[in-house]
Amino acid sequence: MHKPPLYIIKIGGHVLDDVPTLQSFLNMLQKFQHPYILVHGGGKKATALSRQLGIETQLHEGRRITDDATRDVVVMVYAGLINKQLVAQLQSRNINAIGLSGADANLLPARKREHTDIDFGWVGDVYGSNINTNLLQQLINQRLVPVVAPITHNNKGELLNTNADAIASHLAIAMSPSFTVSLVYCFEKNGVLANADNNTSVVQLLNQQQFNLLKTNGCIHSGMIPKLTQAFDALQQGVSDIYITHALHLLHLNTPDYEGTRLA
Amino acid sequence: MHKPPLYIIKIGGHVLDDVPTLQSFLNMLQKFQHPYILVHGGGKKATALSRQLGIETQLHEGRRITDDATRDVVVMVYAGLINKQLVAQLQSRNINAIGLSGADANLLPARKREHTDIDFGWVGDVYGSNINTNLLQQLINQRLVPVVAPITHNNKGELLNTNADAIASHLAIAMSPSFTVSLVYCFEKNGVLANADNNTSVVQLLNQQQFNLLKTNGCIHSGMIPKLTQAFDALQQGVSDIYITHALHLLHLNTPDYEGTRLA
Repeated sequence: MHKPPLYIIKIGGHVLDDVPTLQSFLNMLQKFQHPYILVHGGGKKATALSRQLGIETQLHEGRRITDDATRDVVVMVYAGLINKQLVAQLQSRNINAIGLSGADANLLPARKREHTDIDFGWVGDVYGSNINTNLLQQLINQRLVPVVAPITHNNKGELLNTNADAIASHLAIAMSPSFTVSLVYCFEKNGVLANADNNTSVVQLLNQQQFNLLKTNGCIHSGMIPKLTQAFDALQQGVSDIYITHALHLLHLNTPDYEGTRLA
Repeated sequence: MHKPPLYIIKIGGHVLDDVPTLQSFLNMLQKFQHPYILVHGGGKKATALSRQLGIETQLHEGRRITDDATRDVVVMVYAGLINKQLVAQLQSRNINAIGLSGADANLLPARKREHTDIDFGWVGDVYGSNINTNLLQQLINQRLVPVVAPITHNNKGELLNTNADAIASHLAIAMSPSFTVSLVYCFEKNGVLANADNNTSVVQLLNQQQFNLLKTNGCIHSGMIPKLTQAFDALQQGVSDIYITHALHLLHLNTPDYEGTRLA
């Protein structure tokens, strides 16, 4: 069966915070030839708003601990401000974007993270395989571009702060039975770096073995570890191609000019 | 042609602010037998957040003047916090809600309000007849419940604060060619009151002539005037029934037990 292409494009916080880069990235989306779903992270706005409101930001291994007040902030910033600003910016470029959170239409069923050592608060993980792919497929068929904010719900009326990288990989896996899915992590670096301090040390082709090695010797660390672990998992579960690259390399995916990392 | 029923239900700010009433209202939606679209207003949260952030709230005839900082606040609170909390609360009641703003999928094309005397800032009005009724119809066919936040965009990348009563009446008119539409304004009073201080003085059946009279003698004033003007306009433009009533009278619409106002 021929499966049509679909790109799941995740943009990270640093891209969202950098206005000129974000504008260039959105201009590139205007020229992007394939159907896609855009997944966005948070960025500095949630931290800035928390500070303005006198809410202390607590992180554990790069993940935000989400108490009641922090949860309100991330829902407002991710599902409100960032999501709707992206939608309006895309609409102004004649891209018919539709903003959704994981709670809407029960898009991404999730549950609160339980942890023995540390209470992450209102942090959730996508759970089970009932992702609402039907809805996404119908929106895509109507040439709409879903823009997904990293907020889910626990089915008990509570909203959950959810990692955007994980959402992107779950969506990629879920859409793979019907589409040839490429999962693209766009961020502020040129790709996975063999030397974190050198933006030209891009690992062009990365396999699981090399990943393990780079992890062991400490070249790959912190937030990149869960991102890559999920990405390799997605590759195992039917996702065709996975790219990790600078946001402004978007139009060179799948061409000889591509700069960035591809997983193999 | 037989047109299936559709209810456009608008809940106002006071209902959103009153937790027990809101919970009872949402419980009633679980028992509501017809397809519907929920439109919500703002409530006190935007004002409270503005105050916390040191932003001065300016109103002109009950409408918020929306400078840059206030716009961010209303987008965060209306399209983020309130919209997603309602969605999560409905999902927990097995109602498959999908939150949307007027910007999403270009649902409600709008333009910035121009005014000779006063600059309302980023306030917008629904404009033209290109409401995305197709999308709404498809969502309803899939038994999804659209939950609409009063934020639109100007097609130039800017988000606009938009009156929720007006959104409800525009949606009601736009859906009328395909559905027998009832437009229901749910708020904290029992209906349109002949005497604003007496919650039992409900005008049960209100026509345009009586409205003009009650307006002239000052019984109906401030925010109720644009609400009713738009409502009578909707009645002229194909909307079948218009109810103005307490949020907790929802299940008695169209029954002999109905308490509240019906427009004629």
